[in-house]
Amino acid sequence: MSARNLFLSPLFILILNSTSAQEIGNLRLGKTNLHLFLDGYGRPNYEVSFNGKAVIEASHLGMVLAEDENLDKNFEVIGTRKNSFDQNWQPVWGEVKNIRNHYEELTVRLRQKQSGNLLNIIFRVFEDGVGFRYEFPLQPGLKYFVVKDEVTQFHMGGDHKTFWIPADYDTNEYPYTTSRLSEVDNTELVKKSTDIAVRVAPDPNGVQTPLMMKTNDGLYINIHEAALVNYPAMQLHVDRNNFILTSTLVPDPVGSKAFLHAPALTPWRTIIVSDNAADILASKMILNLNEPTTLKNTSWIKPTKFVGVWWEMQTEKATWSYSDFPDSTDAHGNLIPNHRHGANTQNVKRYIDFAAKNNIGAVLVEGWNTGWEDWFGKWKEDVFDFVTPYPDFDIKEISSYAKSKGVKMIMHNETSGSATNYERQMDTAFRLMNKFGYTSVKTGYVGKIIPRGEYHDGQWMVRHYERAAKKALQYHVMIDMHEPVRPTGLQRTYPNWLACEAARGNEYNAFSEFGNKPEHETILPFTRLMGGPMDYTPGIFKLRGYSKVAGRQVQTTLAKQLALYVTLYSPIQMAADLPENYEGHMDAFQFIKDVPVDWDDTKILEAEPGDYLTIARKEKGKGNWFLGAITDENSRKTKISLGFLDRGKKYRARIYADGDNADLHNNPESYKITERTVSSIDELDLNLVAGGGAAVSFMEIK
Amino acid sequence: MSARNLFLSPLFILILNSTSAQEIGNLRLGKTNLHLFLDGYGRPNYEVSFNGKAVIEASHLGMVLAEDENLDKNFEVIGTRKNSFDQNWQPVWGEVKNIRNHYEELTVRLRQKQSGNLLNIIFRVFEDGVGFRYEFPLQPGLKYFVVKDEVTQFHMGGDHKTFWIPADYDTNEYPYTTSRLSEVDNTELVKKSTDIAVRVAPDPNGVQTPLMMKTNDGLYINIHEAALVNYPAMQLHVDRNNFILTSTLVPDPVGSKAFLHAPALTPWRTIIVSDNAADILASKMILNLNEPTTLKNTSWIKPTKFVGVWWEMQTEKATWSYSDFPDSTDAHGNLIPNHRHGANTQNVKRYIDFAAKNNIGAVLVEGWNTGWEDWFGKWKEDVFDFVTPYPDFDIKEISSYAKSKGVKMIMHNETSGSATNYERQMDTAFRLMNKFGYTSVKTGYVGKIIPRGEYHDGQWMVRHYERAAKKALQYHVMIDMHEPVRPTGLQRTYPNWLACEAARGNEYNAFSEFGNKPEHETILPFTRLMGGPMDYTPGIFKLRGYSKVAGRQVQTTLAKQLALYVTLYSPIQMAADLPENYEGHMDAFQFIKDVPVDWDDTKILEAEPGDYLTIARKEKGKGNWFLGAITDENSRKTKISLGFLDRGKKYRARIYADGDNADLHNNPESYKITERTVSSIDELDLNLVAGGGAAVSFMEIK
Repeated sequence: MSARNLFLSPLFILILNSTSAQEIGNLRLGKTNLHLFLDGYGRPNYEVSFNGKAVIEASHLGMVLAEDENLDKNFEVIGTRKNSFDQNWQPVWGEVKNIRNHYEELTVRLRQKQSGNLLNIIFRVFEDGVGFRYEFPLQPGLKYFVVKDEVTQFHMGGDHKTFWIPADYDTNEYPYTTSRLSEVDNTELVKKSTDIAVRVAPDPNGVQTPLMMKTNDGLYINIHEAALVNYPAMQLHVDRNNFILTSTLVPDPVGSKAFLHAPALTPWRTIIVSDNAADILASKMILNLNEPTTLKNTSWIKPTKFVGVWWEMQTEKATWSYSDFPDSTDAHGNLIPNHRHGANTQNVKRYIDFAAKNNIGAVLVEGWNTGWEDWFGKWKEDVFDFVTPYPDFDIKEISSYAKSKGVKMIMHNETSGSATNYERQMDTAFRLMNKFGYTSVKTGYVGKIIPRGEYHDGQWMVRHYERAAKKALQYHVMIDMHEPVRPTGLQRTYPNWLACEAARGNEYNAFSEFGNKPEHETILPFTRLMGGPMDYTPGIFKLRGYSKVAGRQVQTTLAKQLALYVTLYSPIQMAADLPENYEGHMDAFQFIKDVPVDWDDTKILEAEPGDYLTIARKEKGKGNWFLGAITDENSRKTKISLGFLDRGKKYRARIYADGDNADLHNNPESYKITERTVSSIDELDLNLVAGGGAAVSFMEIK
Repeated sequence: MSARNLFLSPLFILILNSTSAQEIGNLRLGKTNLHLFLDGYGRPNYEVSFNGKAVIEASHLGMVLAEDENLDKNFEVIGTRKNSFDQNWQPVWGEVKNIRNHYEELTVRLRQKQSGNLLNIIFRVFEDGVGFRYEFPLQPGLKYFVVKDEVTQFHMGGDHKTFWIPADYDTNEYPYTTSRLSEVDNTELVKKSTDIAVRVAPDPNGVQTPLMMKTNDGLYINIHEAALVNYPAMQLHVDRNNFILTSTLVPDPVGSKAFLHAPALTPWRTIIVSDNAADILASKMILNLNEPTTLKNTSWIKPTKFVGVWWEMQTEKATWSYSDFPDSTDAHGNLIPNHRHGANTQNVKRYIDFAAKNNIGAVLVEGWNTGWEDWFGKWKEDVFDFVTPYPDFDIKEISSYAKSKGVKMIMHNETSGSATNYERQMDTAFRLMNKFGYTSVKTGYVGKIIPRGEYHDGQWMVRHYERAAKKALQYHVMIDMHEPVRPTGLQRTYPNWLACEAARGNEYNAFSEFGNKPEHETILPFTRLMGGPMDYTPGIFKLRGYSKVAGRQVQTTLAKQLALYVTLYSPIQMAADLPENYEGHMDAFQFIKDVPVDWDDTKILEAEPGDYLTIARKEKGKGNWFLGAITDENSRKTKISLGFLDRGKKYRARIYADGDNADLHNNPESYKITERTVSSIDELDLNLVAGGGAAVSFMEIK
């Protein structure tokens, strides 16, 4: 072996590292411990353990910038700063009334030896994990700069079980795969997911966050990010041999990742950990790492349930478009109606009537505005103007009718991915909402993004979504975004940003070949929902026979559809089925009428990602509790202690369970409703069929 | 020779072509003849001749679309339609009062045999050349589609002399090269043009249009385009062996060229031809190929001269920025002034006073708004907000002062290339102009374009410039764009779009190493100005000693600077030098005071691209004439017949000529002014030194 070979050998590097590594320090809160050091190359490294068990083994941190201004090695520590924090705060809406934000903070100030460039890394250790972010302080050598790559690593140190979707630049609408880290390969899944409008997943070993993992020794670990602002989404490349996850940032059209201006902060990288799956769901770390809202008046922000002219288009009973062909016009140049247009005044009034009668606060109408005849594909920039109704949609009449019935209207702004067009029309669109009293908007980004070459999850679009949320805020409109980047807790900062889709919603049961597997809803809370509420659109009652495609069905029982209102938290929840499909089952619909969308308290009673989930929540400002229990493709019997109920109080429990002869494939719509009077010392036996669930309302008896 | 080789031999193709080629027809007007046929592959071909001389030899036409929907061969002619047109129209402003639009039109309707797809090509034959465009009619097989390439060829058939700049996607700010077609190679020129902010010129044999050529047998040929709307700019690839020019379209970030929706029209491809160089400049074909304006009230559109706080920044006497460093702030977070900021209230008032005193209608102020401390580079999106003045620029005070003096203010909106940011702020920006009575705006696009990956001359930006012009129109604001795509006659459609830069302006004499060569202004009218007016910013009187760089000078005499007001037509003309540099030469400045910016008539008296140019123009609505004569690096004596003057009238001619001892390098500021009474039967001897010129005002004696 020559001297040259020796220099390059792993052994030599190991020696070099071990001889010149430099301790930075430890930070601990509860069972969580963080250890920081510089390795022999001057690279910042961190390690995380929980209750003595390794969570993250020594992993590099750093940045690669354009123009050779790399910030990934040759650092020296020029200072550290510690801070302890423990405060309670109250969200405008949410799963709980009070949130405790308790952490130990350590800011490590680094200077690169040659360049003199400065980089800070801010660590916060919580009882349930660790968050850290990079800070580029004001400095002479670094003003405006371009991030080429972020080298943040998560060295998992074991071949964990993981629940993942492909690292796609444009979408999160995949089914989850459960596999070992060593088995992560998204190639086939991406190839066959032709139901997804736009897919760009260049890394076969790339996965999205929130990434949920479970170790062989029983630790649950979730990796995501918080406060994604002015930066691209972080995805993770899986080194399948060494179990090292490395951040990969969604690029822009020229391959750059982020354009920043010092002083600048990256989003927080979050590692939530527990030996109990329920604690992962109960974690408020991501919310805590976001900035509080600066909004003074939040009285106009009101969580709501809604119905909508929507599922009838998903199931092809009606059309979004007014005409079947864009060029189908009469002698006067007017579109010739296809007479299957869902968003017509009469039909909308039917939904308004249903909502008014059944304690549903709002009505969404899709397909109300011109442009749907040829809205998708071919990367078109100027499809919609967001203000021109079809001739059979009388916006004035509908708005005043809704108002007379005490029902709010939800605006729909589908952009077909053309963000540039939406940005040009946004003020006009929001002025229309204000004029006609629309208090919420559902936006959509189905299609390839314009600016062309940008991706849904790149920095430019991340900034666009924030601009849309701010614009909505300026006009006092609540916003629910479909097909945006997945959320990262920004609802704390923008409480009018009620929900996002950003995952595979219930609609895939309508139009995709395989729908959503029974386990899907047991994984979502551990993955997508870690960042924020999802507009999943539950509540389908007609679980078979809604599609022209033979054999297609929603892969849950009816009782499980009810349970989802509790297990999938959102301040804006749709009762997604058609009024006529509810009308034969108004006894079951009673649960949807009763279940609130805002809570004072939440108890995760049972949880195992991919298997089952039982959650109890207490209605905001009231004494009632609601429970949802769901299972995957396996049936499940469970005995639930009602110890979460307020001690000493009595409740009328109404139990919506799978019917005795319920069967996922042959009889999914079978349910039975029973009633009992209970208190906190009671127990409840639940019997879930495969793909089934149970929903319970506990109405306080005064 | 095997059968296979025979099949591929040119001889065989020739036979195939000649046997199965199909005549389409001839179209003739005056000396111009157009011949059309389908070749043996079903490819549309055209030939142009002028006075019996070949202008364009048989050249292919066609389109290559994405998704294999090519429209370049296997066509059959399914119909033709002829149309004759001869009308006069009056531009809102311009070089002449009346414009004759006289052409023969032939629409060739093509159908592709296999696909059934339809493509029309519309030809117009004028006395001075040919225009043609592609039309995608409404058809079942082609709705929204993507243009991958346009195969339009111009087979020049000879190694013509040509005046060219590199086919750059982002800029036209190059000096012209005069060479044979066979010598076109832009590699070195692009490499050394480091004074240009952004350069992307991937084709070493690519050139921009308008491309000016001269054949060995004395024909002058100009190739450009008209009505560039919703399409990228056309550049030309030069096949140096066969003298075939092929259109190359500026791409978008993903390599596509144009996103279109049938029915759709491409811009016109224009071939202007004459045996007389003057006729090229007199041609109105490009204007005629643009759509008339639909604007009813044009009374607010007023050509104007202006001075401005601008040259003092170009020459580094003052700064655009208020502070020298973006982070240079005091304890209150306010910028610390550098005390060299040009756009301060007092200095602006000095310009207003000078304008008011000297018949200059308007004052431009650059650097009035915050953001200039770090405005350029690093592809920053949100530099300017277009509405916030620096603390020393009292916009209210300045506006009312200008109003009291009868002077209009010209707004400045530099975008630094961030079109997305400008589009978001545009309404706010124009509202500010309306509020403070700014009737014009100068926009700028110095820097790499955002949306990132788009180019200045791609379809997205072409649409942006049109949006900006329309937005300005909506607010009754005139617009002058710097660093946009080069113009194509759209000032006919948008008469508020007064001028563009889109070429190497006078400013290069301030900041570039080599400035503009004396021939530069003799080429511009034959190239860049064929598409529309240029804001060249002439009128520099202090031709040396303005720069800190030793030896730098404007490469003209002072008299030539005056002549440029006539030879470089624009409805918005700057007197670009500083008031103090004019004040010692108010006798020469008299010409700038007198010369108008709008004309009833124009006579191109002498012209040779690259050598010399003499133009006479008659003032709009008045009896006065003005003449400009310029030369290149060679001195020139000429005798001008004044036969252009109105017969029977007498004029006081004031002749601003190079001084007897004027010398381009040693004494460029030397001029002499003489006066004579003349009429149309007189002649005028002009004596131009190398790099010199002469300007003459003929004021009607009543």
